[in-house]
Parts: sequence; C-alpha cells; structure tokens
Amino acid sequence: MPIPPDIVCLDDYERHARALLPADIQAYIGGGAADMTTLRDNRDAFARLRLLPRVLGNLRDASAAASLFGLTLETPVIAAPMAWQKLVHPEGEFAMATGAAAAGAGCIASCQASVDMTELARNSPAPLWFQLYLQPRRDDTLALVQRAGDAGYRALVVTVDAPVNGVRNAEQRAGFHLPAHVRSVNLAGFAQAAATRAGPARSPVFRGLVDAAPSWDDIVWLREQTRLPLLLKGVTHPDDAGRALDLGVDGLIVSNHGGRVLDGVPAAIDLLPAVARRVDGRIPVLMDGGVRRGTDVLKALALGARAVLVGRPLYWALATAGAAGVAHALAILATELEAAMALTGRPALAAIDASVLARPHG
Amino acid sequence: MPIPPDIVCLDDYERHARALLPADIQAYIGGGAADMTTLRDNRDAFARLRLLPRVLGNLRDASAAASLFGLTLETPVIAAPMAWQKLVHPEGEFAMATGAAAAGAGCIASCQASVDMTELARNSPAPLWFQLYLQPRRDDTLALVQRAGDAGYRALVVTVDAPVNGVRNAEQRAGFHLPAHVRSVNLAGFAQAAATRAGPARSPVFRGLVDAAPSWDDIVWLREQTRLPLLLKGVTHPDDAGRALDLGVDGLIVSNHGGRVLDGVPAAIDLLPAVARRVDGRIPVLMDGGVRRGTDVLKALALGARAVLVGRPLYWALATAGAAGVAHALAILATELEAAMALTGRPALAAIDASVLARPHG
Amino acid sequence: MPIPPDIVCLDDYERHARALLPADIQAYIGGGAADMTTLRDNRDAFARLRLLPRVLGNLRDASAAASLFGLTLETPVIAAPMAWQKLVHPEGEFAMATGAAAAGAGCIASCQASVDMTELARNSPAPLWFQLYLQPRRDDTLALVQRAGDAGYRALVVTVDAPVNGVRNAEQRAGFHLPAHVRSVNLAGFAQAAATRAGPARSPVFRGLVDAAPSWDDIVWLREQTRLPLLLKGVTHPDDAGRALDLGVDGLIVSNHGGRVLDGVPAAIDLLPAVARRVDGRIPVLMDGGVRRGTDVLKALALGARAVLVGRPLYWALATAGAAGVAHALAILATELEAAMALTGRPALAAIDASVLARPHG
Amino acid sequence: MPIPPDIVCLDDYERHARALLPADIQAYIGGGAADMTTLRDNRDAFARLRLLPRVLGNLRDASAAASLFGLTLETPVIAAPMAWQKLVHPEGEFAMATGAAAAGAGCIASCQASVDMTELARNSPAPLWFQLYLQPRRDDTLALVQRAGDAGYRALVVTVDAPVNGVRNAEQRAGFHLPAHVRSVNLAGFAQAAATRAGPARSPVFRGLVDAAPSWDDIVWLREQTRLPLLLKGVTHPDDAGRALDLGVDGLIVSNHGGRVLDGVPAAIDLLPAVARRVDGRIPVLMDGGVRRGTDVLKALALGARAVLVGRPLYWALATAGAAGVAHALAILATELEAAMALTGRPALAAIDASVLARPHG
Ligand SMILES: Cc1cc2nc3c(=O)[nH]c(=O)nc-3n(C[C@H](O)[C@H](O)[C@H](O)COP(=O)(O)O)c2cc1C
Ligand SMILES: Cc1cc2nc3c(=O)[nH]c(=O)nc-3n(C[C@H](O)[C@H](O)[C@H](O)COP(=O)(O)O)c2cc1C
Ligand SMILES: Cc1cc2nc3c(=O)[nH]c(=O)nc-3n(C[C@H](O)[C@H](O)[C@H](O)COP(=O)(O)O)c2cc1C
Ligand SMILES: Cc1cc2nc3c(=O)[nH]c(=O)nc-3n(C[C@H](O)[C@H](O)[C@H](O)COP(=O)(O)O)c2cc1C
Repeated sequence: MPIPPDIVCLDDYERHARALLPADIQAYIGGGAADMTTLRDNRDAFARLRLLPRVLGNLRDASAAASLFGLTLETPVIAAPMAWQKLVHPEGEFAMATGAAAAGAGCIASCQASVDMTELARNSPAPLWFQLYLQPRRDDTLALVQRAGDAGYRALVVTVDAPVNGVRNAEQRAGFHLPAHVRSVNLAGFAQAAATRAGPARSPVFRGLVDAAPSWDDIVWLREQTRLPLLLKGVTHPDDAGRALDLGVDGLIVSNHGGRVLDGVPAAIDLLPAVARRVDGRIPVLMDGGVRRGTDVLKALALGARAVLVGRPLYWALATAGAAGVAHALAILATELEAAMALTGRPALAAIDASVLARPHG
Repeated sequence: MPIPPDIVCLDDYERHARALLPADIQAYIGGGAADMTTLRDNRDAFARLRLLPRVLGNLRDASAAASLFGLTLETPVIAAPMAWQKLVHPEGEFAMATGAAAAGAGCIASCQASVDMTELARNSPAPLWFQLYLQPRRDDTLALVQRAGDAGYRALVVTVDAPVNGVRNAEQRAGFHLPAHVRSVNLAGFAQAAATRAGPARSPVFRGLVDAAPSWDDIVWLREQTRLPLLLKGVTHPDDAGRALDLGVDGLIVSNHGGRVLDGVPAAIDLLPAVARRVDGRIPVLMDGGVRRGTDVLKALALGARAVLVGRPLYWALATAGAAGVAHALAILATELEAAMALTGRPALAAIDASVLARPHG
Repeated sequence: MPIPPDIVCLDDYERHARALLPADIQAYIGGGAADMTTLRDNRDAFARLRLLPRVLGNLRDASAAASLFGLTLETPVIAAPMAWQKLVHPEGEFAMATGAAAAGAGCIASCQASVDMTELARNSPAPLWFQLYLQPRRDDTLALVQRAGDAGYRALVVTVDAPVNGVRNAEQRAGFHLPAHVRSVNLAGFAQAAATRAGPARSPVFRGLVDAAPSWDDIVWLREQTRLPLLLKGVTHPDDAGRALDLGVDGLIVSNHGGRVLDGVPAAIDLLPAVARRVDGRIPVLMDGGVRRGTDVLKALALGARAVLVGRPLYWALATAGAAGVAHALAILATELEAAMALTGRPALAAIDASVLARPHG
Repeated sequence: MPIPPDIVCLDDYERHARALLPADIQAYIGGGAADMTTLRDNRDAFARLRLLPRVLGNLRDASAAASLFGLTLETPVIAAPMAWQKLVHPEGEFAMATGAAAAGAGCIASCQASVDMTELARNSPAPLWFQLYLQPRRDDTLALVQRAGDAGYRALVVTVDAPVNGVRNAEQRAGFHLPAHVRSVNLAGFAQAAATRAGPARSPVFRGLVDAAPSWDDIVWLREQTRLPLLLKGVTHPDDAGRALDLGVDGLIVSNHGGRVLDGVPAAIDLLPAVARRVDGRIPVLMDGGVRRGTDVLKALALGARAVLVGRPLYWALATAGAAGVAHALAILATELEAAMALTGRPALAAIDASVLARPHG
C-alpha cells in the first residue's frame, strides 16, 4: 500500500480509503449520529471562520513546536483515540502510533484499541496518551489505569461524552458488526452495561443503560487513583469545564466526539471559545472535530486551543497506506499549518491569537 | 406487513410507505400548502436549533413520563389527528390507536376519521382525545361533542387554523380524490360550507366559504356545552393565546397544521416561544409540525411545550406496517429522546428548559 | 388553446408556455439583467417574509376590493405593462386587457404595445392605464400623452428606471430579435436615441445613449402637459420618492423592472418599505417584481403597497391560453389572496398592515 | 481565433477557453488555494452587495475616465499581473498589453512574464506598470527595478502576499508543470529560495523557504532604490496599510491574490473598506479579486477603490481570442460599468460613493 500519488490533502485519503473498504466499515468510520448535522457542522464552522493575512513580518526561526503532558510535538496535532484500528489495517494501532511519531505528532490510544495497550506503548517510537472509558465496575477501570501507568502512557484522556451510544443510523443501515478478528482486547473480561432495570420506560436507555453512566463522583475517585495527568474529553459546557477545574483535572478536550454521539450539538470549534474563556489559561484546552486543514489548526489555536486532535482522516490514511499514510497525512497538515502561520505573520504558536481571525463578510 | 429491517429512524418509514402508495395519496399525506415553504421550514427550524451537552450528571431513575388530560404517557408524544387513515391501512384509526398505546404514547382521533368514533374509543387499549372541527351548524357540532363524551374521549382538541382550505397544489396536481370506501363517517349527514353568497368577489372564498368559518363566539358557546378539557389546535399568535386563556380554554397546541394550510407561516417550533411566554405556565402548551427525532422533542420541551404531536411519520408507519409500525416508530422516537436527555443531563421532563439550547454558530 | 387542467398556480403557466415558445422569446420574457441576481431575489425576498395567522376572527362580508385612479378592482392586482404581446398571442394586448377585466383586475398598456393604443382602449371591457417612456423628442412624448387622454386611459405610468438598456445577457445569447409582424406601433416615426457623441468613452453608453435619458426637468414639463394622474414606475430610492412628491406626482410604483435593467438591485419587496415610509400615505404606492402568490400580494400590502403589478406570469398565461389564461391566472391569485386574508384574520384590504408579518426564524 | 459570437459577458470567455486548454493549464489559471473558499467568496461577496438605483438624474457629459501613476484610463480597470501568458497564446504578454490599450484600460506586467520585460514595454501601445517579486538576493531585485525604470514602466507593484507558495491542490492534482517554451525569462540566473535550513520542523516551509521571505526592511530599502511610484499588492490588514503609509509607499492594492495563496481569507471586496478607512484618501487604494461585471467595478469604487485589477477573465480571453479577446472583454466591462453608473445616477467616478450601496434584504 504505497501512498497514491494524487493525494495532496487530507480529504484525498477518504476518497482512496472508501474505494478499498466495505460499505459497513465506511459507515462506521465516516458516519455520525442521526441526521449528521453536527458531523457536517464540525467542518462548515471551520469554513465560516476567516483568516486575516499579515505581510512582510519577520519569519526567521519560525517554529510550530509544542510540548504537552509528556509529548514533544513538532506540530500541535495529535491522533485522536479511535477504536478498533485493525478493522482497516493488520497493524492497526501500531501503525497509527508509528505514523504519528514519524510526523512529529502525538497519538492517543483508544480504550477500545484492537491491540494490547502494553505492547502498543512498548512498540511506539514516541510516548503516547491513553484514552479511558470509565467502566461499569471501578475495579475494571482501575486495572486499566494501572496498566496505562505501568506501560508508560503519559496521560489519561477520560472520554465523558458518550455515557450512552449515539443514534448511529448510518452504521445501523449499513449493518456494521465487528469482524471476529477485531476486539477490544484491553477490555476482555470486563462487565458491560445492560438494559435490565424494570420501570415504566420501554426503551433500553432509561431501563438500565444509563445506570452504568459515569458521574462526577467517578472523576473525584479517579483523580485519587493516579498521578498521571488527567484530561477530560468531550467537555463542551463552560460549567462542566469549571467543575473539572475544581476537581483538579489537568486538561480538557472540547469535542462532540466527531458528531458521533448527540446530533444537533454545535460544531466543536464553535464550542471552544466559551470553554477557553472559562478555563482562562489555567489548564491546557485542546479540541477535536472537523480538523482537515492546516488553516483549521490555526483557527483552533486562535480560539484558545493548545493543540488539536485529528480523527477520521488518519483512519482513512491508515486504511490507504498504513503508517506511511498516517505520517504523510500529518506532514501535509503540518506543512499547511506552517504556510498559514507564515501568511498570517505568526512565527510561533504563542503568537497565534484571536487577531488572526476576521469576521466573515467583512 | 412486517417492519422492514432497514428502518432505523422515522424518515425511513416515509421511504417505505411511498414505495407502497399511489402518487395521489402520497401527495395528500406528504404535501403542504402552495410552495411548501412552511412544510420545509418546520423541519429546518428544528435543525437550526443546537443542543448543549452536559456530562457526568446523575442519571439514575431517569424517566420521560408525563400525564396530560387523562393520558398516561411514558414519553411525551401524541399521535396527531389525521383524517381518513383507511386510505393506507384497512384497520385505519384502530391500528393507529393500538400502535400509540403499545408505545406508551397518546393518540388523537381526527374529526374526519374513517372509522366510527365510538367504536374507535371502545377498541383503543388506552384513552384517546377527540379532534373537533366546528361544523357550519351548531347542532352538528353538539352531536359530535356528546358522542365524544359518551365514548370516553378524555379531551376535545378544537382545530381552529383551517377555516378555509389551504392552497394544496401538490394534491391538486396529483388529482387526489377520496376513494369510495373511505369517508368521514362521523360527519355523515352534516351540513357543508358552500360558496353561495352574492357579492363582488369572484373567488369562492369571499363568496361564501368564509361565512361558515368559526369565530371566538363559537368557542364561548362550546365551552358551555361540555366539561371535557378543551384544547385549541392551531393557535400561533400570542394575542390569540391570550384570548383563549380568557375564555377558559384548557390547553393550546401551537401548530401550523403541518404546513398544510397557509404557506409562509413560520416554523411551528419558531412560533412556540412567544405563545409559551404569553401563557406563562397557566395551561399546558403543546406543539406539532416537523417533529422527526427525539432531539426535536427535547427542543420543543426546552422551548415550552409539555408534549408534542407527531403527524406524517405515523401515517407513513401505518401504511408500512400497521399498528406495529406505529408502535415501532414511536419507540424509536422515545429511545432517541431518552438518549438526548441523558446526553444533556436531564433525568426528567421537568429538568428540560431553555438552557439545553445553544445558539447556532456559537 | 384551452386552459391545461394541471395548472393550479401561476408558475404552472410558465412551464406550459415555455413548452410552446421558441427559446429566444422565452429568454426575452423570462430573462433578467446580467447574472439575474435581482430577478431571483425578487422572489426569494417574498419567500423570506413570514406571515402570522390569526384565528377565529370575524370574516363575514370580507372583501378584497379597491379602486385606484379610475380602476375598479375586485382584487388589488394589475397587469404590468409589457412590450410586444403579439410575440406570444395573435390578439396580444387585446387578450391581456380582456383577461384582466374578466378577473376584476387592472391592466396597464405598454408604451411598446404591439397593437394600436387607441384601438386597445376602445376594445377593453374595463378602463386601462397607459405606460409612457419619455421619448428623445418632447413632441413625440406629447403626441403619446394626448392620444392616451383622447383614448380614455385613466392614468399615465411613466417608467423612469430604464434610461439605458439593461445588460440582457440571456436575451443576447438566445439571439432574440423582434419578428417582422411585431412592432412598437405606437412609436412609429419617433426619434430614437443613438450613440453618436464624440468623446473619450469607447462604449456606446457614455458616447451618446445617455444623452437621450429623461431627467426631473422632463417630469416637471410633463406634469404641465396633462391632467391625467401621473405615476412614476421604477422609483426605489426614498429621495427620488420625495422629489416626485414635491413635483406633484400622483402615485409611485416601486419596481426594479422585474430585474431586467440593473442587476444587483435589492428585491422590489425589500425596497418598498423605505419608499412607503417616505411617502407616508400622501399618495398611493404600488410595487411589482416577483409577485407569484396571493401571499405575496398580502405581504406587499402589509409593507405599504396599495396594489401590486404582475408581469411575467401573465405573459406566460397569455401565451398558453390567451385571454382565458390571463383571467384564470388572475383568478388563482385572487383566490389565494382571499384565503390568505381569511387565515390572517383580515376581512378587508384596509385591515392589512405590518402586524401580519413575522420575522423569519422567530 | 476570432471572438466567438456567443460571448456576451466575461464568464463566457472562461467557458470558451476551457474548451481549448489542457486540464492542467485550466487548473493553473482557474484554481485557487486548498478548498477554494476564498476563490468562491471573492465573487459571492460582490453578489451579496446591493446597488441602489437613482432615477432621472442628469447624465450629460458622463465619463468613467481616470488617470493613475502614468496611466490614462478610459475606464478604471487594469489587467492584473499574471505569470507566463505564453502558456495560452503565442504572443503572451504582448497581446495582453495590446488588448488592454485598445480598450483604454491599464496593464501590469508580471515579474514572471514569459516575454522580455524591455521588449514588452517597447511594444506596448500604452504605458505599463511592472509587478515585482522581491528576490532572495537584493542585487537581483535591483536589476529588475533598474530594467523596469529604463524600459519606461510607470510604477512598480510589489506583491507582498505570497512569501510562500499557496496550497494549490487543484494544480497539484492536475499535475501542472511549465512546458519547455514558457519560462520566467526576466528572472533567468537569479537565486531561488530553498528548503535547506536544519531544525526541528520537517516541512519545507519552516525549514528554509520562509527565510527568503521579504520583510518591511526590504520595503524601506526598495523605497531608496527608485523614484518610480511604489504600490504594494496584497495588503489586506489596516495595520499593514498604516505601516506602508509610514514608509512612503505610493499606493496599495487590496488583494488576496485571487484566492491563490491562503485559503480562508475574506473576499477581497470585504477587506477593502477597512484598508480604505485607514488610508483615508492619502494614497490611492486599488483592489482585485472576483471582478467580473461592471457592477463589481462600481461596488469596488463605492467602497473606496480608485480602480480595479482584473485577472483570470483576461487570461481566458487571451486564450480564446488573443489581443482582440482581451480588448473585447475589457470593452464589455466598460460598457457594463457605464450602464451601472447611469442607472445609479453617477456621471463620473468621483460621484461614486458608499451611498450607491444598499444592505442586502432591505
Ligand atoms: C471510527 C471512530 C472511532 C472512535 N473511537 C473513539 C474511542 O474509542 N474513544 C474516544 O474517545 N473517541 C473515539 N472517537 C472520537 C475521536 O476521538 C474524535 O473525537 C473524533 O473523531 C474527532 O473528529 P474528526 O473525526 O472529525 O477529526 C472515534 C471516532 C471515530 C471516527
Ligand atoms: C394527512 C394528514 C391529515 C391531517 N388531518 C388533520 C385533521 O383531520 N385534523 C387536524 O386537526 N389536523 C390534521 N392534520 C394535521 C396534523 O394534525 C398535524 O398538525 C400535522 O400533521 C403536524 O405536522 P407533521 O406532519 O410535520 O408532524 C393532518 C395532517 C396530515 C399530514
Ligand atoms: C417581457 C417583458 C416586457 C416588459 N416591458 C415593459 C415595458 O414595456 N414597460 C415597462 O415599464 N415595463 C416593462 N416590463 C416590466 C414590467 O412592467 C414589470 O415591472 C415586471 O415584469 C414585474 O416583475 P415580474 O415579471 O416579476 O412580475 C416588462 C417586463 C417583461 C417581463
Ligand atoms: C494564472 C495567474 C497567475 C498570476 N500570477 C501573478 C503574478 O505573477 N504576480 C502577481 O502579483 N499576481 C499574480 N496573480 C494574481 C493576480 O494578479 C490577481 O491578484 C488575481 O488574479 C485577481 O483575482 P481574479 O483572477 O479573480 O481577477 C496571478 C493570477 C492568476 C490567475
């Protein structure tokens, strides 16, 4: 799987990957919740933002480097945690981590990785973060946290925006099912949420599924179990951000889960400013959802993000060309970001602020 | 007619039903007035509204239950009154009422039902409301009111937004006519409005049709005829809402009749807030028009509705799979609503308020 | 040419007429200036306006009748002046005037009519207005004014928005030329504007064509030549409206000439309010451009118009079914208007004001 | 290559030229950066602006003439500097200059012209300006400046908005490469920027390319090297405009390089007002990007431009019909502008101000 020569931007990887993948896996990766309003809006909202060029500034010694919770980034971009990467490539998460490291980007292993989390950390050329779903049983959660610490993951990313499954109609229509060789190997033997409670509701959600949903108490508890930096992924409300701050969380990732959970949520980039304002620089805020261009990274940083996560495009790149594809996709993004920084007169990440943005329509 | 396996959301029923129904019946059910601006806007307006997720809240014992004028609802959704349901299913309104009850939803029988209203109430597994059109002759109206009371209907829904027919171009072009076996059996023998008055106007509207239009006096009169709760359906102006309050009406349904009467009226969901503000909690306000997703129900409740009516999707579901289809469609909606409540941190209907909404574009 | 049975609204006439007419004549009638932005916006702007229903009001004795400068209208609609109607029907303007009268609507003969203006007035079942283009030579203008007065036209409509031709690219591409049997018979022998002046400009516009353009002085002069009511057609700027008031003009028609002259002008309905505010009821203000539905008429009246002109739809109706088509198209519009008046609770034109309008998106 | 008879507006030239040119050259001329948001917005923004007609004003002796830094313009339009015009026509820049002169428009030779700059000036029927890219070596820049002065160019246009290449995905995908017979002949032997610097960045941009980027110091230096009027092309930020003023620059061209460099920049016409406000009449401000109609020229002048540059349409016209095509395209634009001036009551460029514009949607 060499890199196809006609790939010049991230979207090109989607085109190629779709040609290779069966329809149900395409739906799983590319789909979103319900009518996919949020999925689309994640990108449209970036397109609505406008950039103001600056000319003739001094650009010598320009750099897009950053470091964040143990990651040394040449570009402020991190591969988002995404489940079951063996679905599209035999090396799965190993290839993703390798590609990210090759491009000087970060990488977050999913709680639902299809490879052993300890093996993954050991084989990765660069440090990783671990994404955690709080499990119905605290013991199971604790087991994951300890394995992550032991394996050398540098931070825990607790995803809090998916206590129940999204309404994934695209996946449902395509009949997506995990093939036999792909499993959440790191969750083997853990308890699952189930719809068992009696009561008036006839839908499974209120008849039990929500009983397993994590709450703030679990964050308090988790904070006491580990010294690893703790980031919450999926915080979008300023009040939730405030509460996270109070509880000693180390970082936040503003995210609507790529439009995969609740449809109708605003675009992630539109949710970022209010959270960034509330946090007011006390801890790093990151974001994900719809980042496809170096200019998107620039816009996210202008609105308060310290770095961004990129999801689907890297899944498509992995499917198309393995680790090399992932590295190439991230290199495209890095080059685009640097060009955008040069053209807006920003020689360093610290120089990127809201003044880089213009209102649409003047 | 089993439920087709690829149906995962309400819109899927429309697709299936259209494949089964002749073009003129499709136009009758699916069409709207004139250029169908309002029909489209009913849905677009829901899509414009954005939801703000909340994370890590306590969701134990969550419930979407409500009770309203004699209906015990497990989910705040009611089948809208729709004429002539035998058009698409031999059991017509019987199947609709059965399906609604099976899903823990409510049901309103149309004044233009194609089955006997007394039979219908007797056969329904759960209580019903009766939708009333004020008839040109008060005696005829009174007959309906008494039959409704005798049959055990729990409330009267007086539809006030259709004193003249809408400009139903889609239906006209498709040449829709009632087939012989489908009739408004409950109106048999009643007087009809007619264009008979002399005068300068050449169009039938001002040459007589409007003479049969009901007025506020008729509401005053009706109020005196019955102890059943009285809801007005089709109120959209705050001043009309105020007048209804003054006359002792028990509930209001904000509705533009699904975009079937006057084209160019704002989306129903956009009309709701001003009415809810004027009513200020004194009586229940409901709404209908364009509800297709659990998130739409959530948005309507956030803007002041106590419950919503759903129209066309249930007609399509009835056509596709009878009572089972109706129950399935309503169960989908209930599940979607519960997921949305969970993801916005609202464990009960009473916890849903405007703070669940975000402005589009941040 | 009987009325096709599938015609249920004005747009249907366009479809039918296009099937009958050669491409160049279609382009002449249906086209607009340059990129046709204004042409489209004339309609889109109506669609953006929203109507607020009122329920249960008293509608007995409702009427849409009006009278205006000698016209007795059963509906406040007037056929716009449009050149060369023999292009599409052998009876041309005769059929248009007959159809309008049959529907209780008004009619304005174009200065560029293809039939004799005196004959036309004599054969029309109802009084007409005459549309005047100020001619390069005042004597020629005077001849037209006197013929109009002698023939019994009730008002002069001076079109002031087309001192130079619009950039009619659609027409140009289609190669539209007047066929031999169609001419501006009432202008026979008159002087024409020509591009003859020397000077730096290389384009014909500033090399002479504009020299023949009429000015305010010509209006002062014209006002002294006739006792007929004088309306200016094509006034869109409040300051021009103010000047017209000062010069004793009797009425104004807000119009962008159906988007046929200067592309990029706002929609006519969007231009109406500022002019109506400036005029403040001192003289009647009318409008045209994009009126296709009874609801459009209602919206125009709500924003200050006393009546509306309808252009292209009647040309298409004339082409499709002659006088009967024109009458039918106008009857559809009248019926739609009456239904809209009923549904917004307005039993007379005088009851229509801005309160009938709602803001889009609530 | 005669002028095709169906060409009635500038866009028609694109259609014709595309039919003649290979796909990669089409992509080179017609493409823009990345997702081409800015490319599209350059035109959409003109379409969003609305014009207010004025009627019956005095238009005698109207003129659109202007003179600017040595150019005598019959219409305030200048051919934008565009590289390598031999790509589409054997006479390349010679034909462009001849066509512009024939239409009474101006012309700017590109630094990357495919013909000798001295020959070009000598053969041009009218004076030209020279567009300069600051070269990595100041000596090379100086050589260009001196040749320009010697050859009689009347002004230097220093393009400052492209210190790095844009993300030209359309070109990349089409595989555009300069054919052997087309070269930047005037830059022969000059040093090129290269990605050679060591350092953390892996992308070529920050690994050396930006080191060759010009800065304000270079403008100070250049100002001292020449008495020719100096215009900066590509200034869009008011603060950059202010700095240019301070350094004694003679004119500014607001431009986003036709959407070819940084995608996501606002439309050029939307960037103009803030720059014009800052400059406040002290030096001439011009603009380019998306000008396709005489009404666009009028809008640009209304927002503060003294003249506009036109790019792609003239490239297409050159490809289609050589010098005659260029002249014809510019004549169309001039005629459209004069018609628009007449219809908005502006008999001279000086009479065009913001009052000619209306807000969209009234
Ligand atoms: C196929 C797929 C699987 C995902 N799995 C997870 C997961 O296991 N855990 C998690 O926190 N987020 C998961 N996400 C969400 C991503 O981490 C990220 O929030 C999202 O993809 C960002 O949006 P983007 O795809 O537009 O870049 C997944 C996303 C995709 C597309
Ligand atoms: C086919 C059809 C028939 C209807 N018949 C009636 C009726 O007899 N009485 C009534 O009050 N509303 C009637 N309605 C309007 C519905 O009660 C309801 O207001 C509307 O359908 C809600 O919009 P929705 O279809 O977008 O959900 C009808 C609607 C449809 C689609
Ligand atoms: C084919 C055609 C010919 C026209 N001829 C004239 C004319 O001779 N004089 C005039 O004042 N307006 C003329 N108009 C403009 C109309 O009077 C009117 O302003 C316009 O058509 C209204 O817009 P509408 O077509 O959208 O209803 C003409 C319009 C059309 C479509
Ligand atoms: C094919 C092409 C080549 C160009 N080459 C140059 C150039 O060499 N120097 C320069 O300053 N601008 C160059 N430009 C930008 C133009 O000068 C101008 O800013 C732009 O084309 C204006 O936008 P428009 O094409 O929408 O009119 C080029 C543009 C095009 C389309």
